[in-house]
Order: sequence, then C-alpha cells, then structure tokens
Amino acid sequence: MSVTAIPDARAELKEALERIQSEIDSAFDALLPVPEDTSARLVEAMRYAAIGGGKRVRPLLLAAVADLYGVDRTAAIHAGCAVEAIHAYSLIHDDLPCMDDDDLRHGKPTVHRAFDEATAVLAGDALHALAFDILVRPEITGDPFVRAELVGALARASGHEGMAGGQMMDMVADGQDYDLRQVTRLQQLKTGALLAASVEMGAILGRVAPEGRVHWRAYARDIGLAFQIADDLLDVEGDPAKAGKALRKDERQGKATFVTLMGLEPAREQARMLTEQAIARLASHGEDASLLKALARYIVERDR
Amino acid sequence: MSVTAIPDARAELKEALERIQSEIDSAFDALLPVPEDTSARLVEAMRYAAIGGGKRVRPLLLAAVADLYGVDRTAAIHAGCAVEAIHAYSLIHDDLPCMDDDDLRHGKPTVHRAFDEATAVLAGDALHALAFDILVRPEITGDPFVRAELVGALARASGHEGMAGGQMMDMVADGQDYDLRQVTRLQQLKTGALLAASVEMGAILGRVAPEGRVHWRAYARDIGLAFQIADDLLDVEGDPAKAGKALRKDERQGKATFVTLMGLEPAREQARMLTEQAIARLASHGEDASLLKALARYIVERDR
Repeated sequence: MSVTAIPDARAELKEALERIQSEIDSAFDALLPVPEDTSARLVEAMRYAAIGGGKRVRPLLLAAVADLYGVDRTAAIHAGCAVEAIHAYSLIHDDLPCMDDDDLRHGKPTVHRAFDEATAVLAGDALHALAFDILVRPEITGDPFVRAELVGALARASGHEGMAGGQMMDMVADGQDYDLRQVTRLQQLKTGALLAASVEMGAILGRVAPEGRVHWRAYARDIGLAFQIADDLLDVEGDPAKAGKALRKDERQGKATFVTLMGLEPAREQARMLTEQAIARLASHGEDASLLKALARYIVERDR
Repeated sequence: MSVTAIPDARAELKEALERIQSEIDSAFDALLPVPEDTSARLVEAMRYAAIGGGKRVRPLLLAAVADLYGVDRTAAIHAGCAVEAIHAYSLIHDDLPCMDDDDLRHGKPTVHRAFDEATAVLAGDALHALAFDILVRPEITGDPFVRAELVGALARASGHEGMAGGQMMDMVADGQDYDLRQVTRLQQLKTGALLAASVEMGAILGRVAPEGRVHWRAYARDIGLAFQIADDLLDVEGDPAKAGKALRKDERQGKATFVTLMGLEPAREQARMLTEQAIARLASHGEDASLLKALARYIVERDR
C-alpha cells in the first residue's frame, strides 16, 4: 500500500463508519417500537443501549466482507444489528455492579445507572434474544440454511466457549497470575470471538463455504488480538473524555494485560505487526478490500 | 375420558416425566463438559442450574407433541434441552438479588447463592446462548428451515415480547394496580410464552405448517394460564418443602394475582375449566394425545 493511499483509505473508512452508524441506528429504531404497556421501560432501556454511541466496528466488518460477495445491503445491516445486539447486551451485563461496576459507557451513564439493575439485567437478556430473532427473519435472507449458519456462529460467540467464557476468565483473574498465553486465550474469547463472528457472518451471508472462510478466520484472529492490545494501550495512554468510559482500570486492578506482560513499546509493535499480517491475508481480494484494510489500521489507531 | 382411564393416564405421565428427566439430564451432561481452563467455574454453574431438579414439563410438552408426528426422539430431546436452557437462564436471572432475590430453587441454593452474582449473570447468559447453539446443530434435524423456525419461536418467547417483557411488567407491578386483564397479559408473557413455544416447537419439528398449529396454540394458551393460576394457588396453599422454593411471596409483596383478583375458589374453578378446554382442543388426536391430556391435568394438580 502506497503512502498516498492512506489518507484516501481513511476518508473512505470515516464515510463508511458514519454511513453504517446511521443505518444501524435506523434499523434498531424500527426493530424496537416502544409498546403501550408497562414493559415499555424494558424497550426504552434496550433502545438506550442499542441506539447511538457505538462505533459499529463489528457491523462494518460484517458489511464490508458481505459487500465483497455482492450481498444485499439490507441483509447485511440486519445481521449487523444482530451482532450489535449481542455486543450491547454483553456491555450492559459486564457493566453491572456485580461485574465490572462501571458508571459510564459511550460517554453516558451505564444502563443500570440510567435505569436500575433489574432493568439492566432484563434489557441485556432481551437484546440477547433479539439478536437471534433478527437473524431468522426473512429480511436477512430467504435461504434458511444461511439463517441457521448465522445463528450458530453468533450463539457460539456469545456463549461459554466465547464471550461469557472470556468474561468468566476475566472475573476469576484476581489472584491468578495469568501469563501471555492465558491472557491471549481470555481475550480471544472475550473480545475476539464476536469480532471473528462478525467477519465470518459476512462470509456466510456471501455463501462462502467453510473451507473458503479460512483466510477470513485468520484475518479476524489477527485484528481481534490487535484490537485488544490497542484497548490495553488505550487504558494506559488514552483520554477518558474521548474514550467515553473509565480508563486506567487495569493498573488499578493489578490485572495482567498485553501491556503489563509485554511492555508498552513491544505491545505497540505487536499490534502493528498483527495489523500488517491481517492486511496481507486480504491480498487475494486486491483493491476491493481497501475498506477492510483501513479497518484493520483503524482498530489499532483509534482513540476510543 | 372415562373415570377408570385417569389412574392409567397418571401412571403414563409419571413414567414419561421420569424418562424425560433422565434424558434431558444426560443430554445436558454431554453438551456441557467442564473445560480445563478458568472458565470451568462458568460451566459448573451452568450444569448446577441445568441438570437435576427441574420437572421438565416443557420438554415433555414438546416431545409429546413431536411424538404425535413421528419425530425422532433425539431431535425432540435436543430441542427440549434448548427450551430448558432458556427456562434455566430465566430462573437464574429472576432469582438475582436485584430481581426477586430468592435463596432457594428446586430445593437447593440459587446459583448466585451457591456461586456468586457475577457467575450467576454469566451462567444465565451462557445458557441463553447455548439454547440457540443447540437448535442449529445437525442433531436436531437436517432441515435448516425447521432449525430457523425453532430459533424464531424460542427467541420470541425469551425476548421483550415474551419472558423478559413479562418479568419487566412484574418488576414494575409495585404501586401499579393491575387488573385481571393486565395480570393475564403479564402471565401470558412471563410464563405462557415459553410453554406455548414448547408446544409449537414440537409441531414445528413435526413439520406442521403454521395453519395446522392453530389448535396447538389454543391448547398452549389454555394450559399456560391454568399453569399460572395453579402457581398462584400453590403460593397460597402449597408446602414450601415440597415446592423447593419460598412461598407466600405474592401476599407478602401485596401483588395482584389470579387468586387475589378472583378469590381462591373461583381461581381454582377457572384453572379446572381451562384444563377441560385444553383437553377438548386435542379431540382430533384421539387416544394418541392421552399424555398431553394427562399433562394438562397435572399442570393444575401438581404440588410443586
């Protein structure tokens, strides 16, 4: 990639992020009308968590992969909403007092702060269910085989062998001296699984057979790790006002991270190396994959 | 139904419940091997909640309907596990301190008591995801159309227009004077939706088209309401030792229930009437539906 290409790629990425942020917000708005009965509070909390604020990196990954295979945009956006519903539910539950006890998310009070704990638990649960409900709607695709595959990829990413398993490993980390291998495994579950599912779901929508998804899984693994190293760096060096959430938490909690285990500069170098490796995996797609290459760079360079 | 048929029907039901309890426990045991890493605690909590203790009324409903259409038993048991995973997750979350704050479930400490709150939230989430993971596995059925329909039915039952919505209505009930119409709506969401999904999923597995499921939905609606009235009666009249959970809670919380709104005897009469109505809906299935008729009776006569 030439030096002059980078500013163009950044502009393309910025435009793509803004476009998908607006598409995902509109889709959630339509998916979640507030009912007339006393369950309205639940839907209001779901909307509070799902609409606005998110970077929408995961739906953009999904849509950018799907676009390479000519997938209908509406299908990609709905599948992207399913991924974001899972992401939103996991943030709501992770922020609860009994978990990470966070007050701020995307620059506004967390759901249990803005509403209450019971509503937060239920809003997370209802977004979790909504994700699978969306995936089997006919808007996604007329092909039930594709729908079932999407459900499988997302359910595995959310469950005990994915995000919930990673969060459990993170919760029991106190008093455990995790080494680099264990932190890598933890993060592959906690954050890597959903990023990987997003990439894979784009390929599933594109009717790419499992054997054709191998390079997508490798790309997803690389950017997933790079994403987490960037997050650890952000926790140390970031601006809480820009991040919209509490920072310096890892240090306060004495938690083993890529930064504490590798050191600042080696961690930064590792993230860069993973990014370049991820970009190299896309060679066969040529210029068509420019957005996915820019996304790989953005993931390590973002300031929130 | 003749008078002498009832003892036979009870014996058939008892045997069917024992059989399915053992089948569901074995299936969960195989689905949830404890991993070697520190996410083991999560899987142990999932196993604690999912294995043993449950009456398995929902899987039996599903399997009994499926059996009328000659569905393979393994498929019915796996779909039954998906339903029970949803049931178990909802109980774990409903029992949390920020929700109903219960210490006892199925005669043993609730998950947040036996483990801790964070583990309980995560175990609920992971069981929620497991349900959908199970439904799209090839063991259920080779037909992806059926798999996608099962996912849709279960996701709607779990979400904001099902159990989560009903629990929200229940949580905001304090200070609201719910009338009979509102309590009926709340309970149709909170407990009715999953019972209805169980019945419907049996018919989906049996490849019954939506128009052929009308009488199944009516049967499910009747037994769902009868089930909840029986629960309200049990809360007033039951033996906590047999029930394996705290009773007399509705009265303590001053909650509007079918019993407080209708009175004891009229509520009991209504439950009986709904049971007879549910049984009448099965007329076209003749003797083949004897188990489903016995289940309808059991639902109002059970002591836990």
